[in-house]
Amino acid sequence: MKLEDAARFLGERDDFEILTHEYPDGDTLGSAFALCLALQRMGKRARVVTTALPKDFVFLLEGIKEQEFEAQTVVSVDIADEKLLGKNREAYEGRIELCLDHHASNRVSAPLRFVDPGAASNCEIIFELFRLMDIKIDRTLANSLYTGVSTDTGCFKFGNTTSRTLRTAAVLLDCGAENARINKVMFDTKTKLKIRLEQEIYGNIHYCAGDRCAMIAATLEMQRRLGIGDDELDGLASIPRQIEGVAIGITLREKEENVFKISVRSDSRIINAAEFCAGFGGGGHIEAAGCQLEGTLDEVRETLRKAVESRL
Amino acid sequence: MKLEDAARFLGERDDFEILTHEYPDGDTLGSAFALCLALQRMGKRARVVTTALPKDFVFLLEGIKEQEFEAQTVVSVDIADEKLLGKNREAYEGRIELCLDHHASNRVSAPLRFVDPGAASNCEIIFELFRLMDIKIDRTLANSLYTGVSTDTGCFKFGNTTSRTLRTAAVLLDCGAENARINKVMFDTKTKLKIRLEQEIYGNIHYCAGDRCAMIAATLEMQRRLGIGDDELDGLASIPRQIEGVAIGITLREKEENVFKISVRSDSRIINAAEFCAGFGGGGHIEAAGCQLEGTLDEVRETLRKAVESRL
Repeated sequence: MKLEDAARFLGERDDFEILTHEYPDGDTLGSAFALCLALQRMGKRARVVTTALPKDFVFLLEGIKEQEFEAQTVVSVDIADEKLLGKNREAYEGRIELCLDHHASNRVSAPLRFVDPGAASNCEIIFELFRLMDIKIDRTLANSLYTGVSTDTGCFKFGNTTSRTLRTAAVLLDCGAENARINKVMFDTKTKLKIRLEQEIYGNIHYCAGDRCAMIAATLEMQRRLGIGDDELDGLASIPRQIEGVAIGITLREKEENVFKISVRSDSRIINAAEFCAGFGGGGHIEAAGCQLEGTLDEVRETLRKAVESRL
Repeated sequence: MKLEDAARFLGERDDFEILTHEYPDGDTLGSAFALCLALQRMGKRARVVTTALPKDFVFLLEGIKEQEFEAQTVVSVDIADEKLLGKNREAYEGRIELCLDHHASNRVSAPLRFVDPGAASNCEIIFELFRLMDIKIDRTLANSLYTGVSTDTGCFKFGNTTSRTLRTAAVLLDCGAENARINKVMFDTKTKLKIRLEQEIYGNIHYCAGDRCAMIAATLEMQRRLGIGDDELDGLASIPRQIEGVAIGITLREKEENVFKISVRSDSRIINAAEFCAGFGGGGHIEAAGCQLEGTLDEVRETLRKAVESRL
């Protein structure tokens, strides 16, 4: 289908529920609240359905009206698979009529499905949609869309950023998007707990393969001792690969006693993260992959060390 | 003067020396090497004059030919004041014929001076200049210009980023700029020493004013013990202000025994950093300012604490 068909569908229908994926991020929330607000401004009824609204994203509610209605039309944004609906899966699986997404791996079954893997963020698709629908993008809508575009590209830092991404962001700035304020919250704010966690992690980095591999670990004991929740652990996986000279960075996150979720980030010219993880029954992309290993921290580290050193 | 005049001047002259500022960053170096390469491709002779070329920027040399010639034309890029020529000041002060800069505070005296404070980076000016000069921007030139645009805006994160910045970067990506590779080096790489330093700093954060102020310190003792040079200390100043809830972040950097360089970063809606520092004979911008204080670490911290608490 074409995006024009999505625009027409949205114009014709009413009483929308807009679904986001579980553990919602800036892109699924930015897409959903922008679309919700735009539909409400068209005189339609709409609400966002999400499993959570982390406090950093509460500003996305600006302008949104709480409306009472029985949903007639279910739309999903940035959802690659109905499994990712989380606790909303039972209520909504099989009910999605329009799916808007940018994941090449999308497998949502919906009568109308627009998937554009060329978009670095789903908000780029919503931006195009708004143009087709002649929706005026004011500061509020620009903020929501900018949040998705910026967060899904690491503030335009990652390789998924395209010239289209940057041009979209440029227009959003011209429409009033408060880029500095949003980026401060998304990229330049750390909780005290996060700082204590990083301090602990930095003090316990294990190197191997002539320092071309670095491993960090977040154990259950550490989480209990520091009083750290799962949320605070997000983003850890990028740390070891950031160390100068490191070609493969491995993060060990203890999920339950002696069961570790392993995240691997690599320089794919030197070592393929997906192949590495496939050796342990996992998988992923060539530079970012994962698997699971059981054992004590020392045992798991030793298993990983041997696997790395046999390849480097 | 207009940028067209700069373009004409560069077309008419030859044997260029292009000056960068001391402690050169991505913007002065990106501007200089891009301009140098473009002039060489026009069949002219040109070289870049810099006080240093940090290893992360060596890639900017791509395509540049070393040429023997006696300089006839001196151009400065991203230099706000001839004082900032550093060790090259004696040789070049008063000799700059064309000054291209984006600092509103520019006080270089040169017959031709083009200063555009609306440009977030000087490379945006060089980009416009290349358009006027009909210079084809290939991958190599795009990489140099992208480096300046990206580094001077914190990868498009800071408030100085405009839609023009983003549109410039978009064109550079279309010209082949290797954004992911460049950003990895500039923003996603930490030395082991830097990690040890951050670990130490994170373990010793002082809060006051009901946690709305956070102070960190890098002492000479710490630098000696960790074997850390001045280079590694760059970027520290942004740390305390990143802590959630902190309205004023203060970094104390011991320059000589019991002499501290104080860097202040603040939320200007709550406290004005420039005014705060003016109280100690310093100055700067409303959200980023500095001053100097003498005393032991404890004494200096106490002085700052009192000043903060009298204002918050």
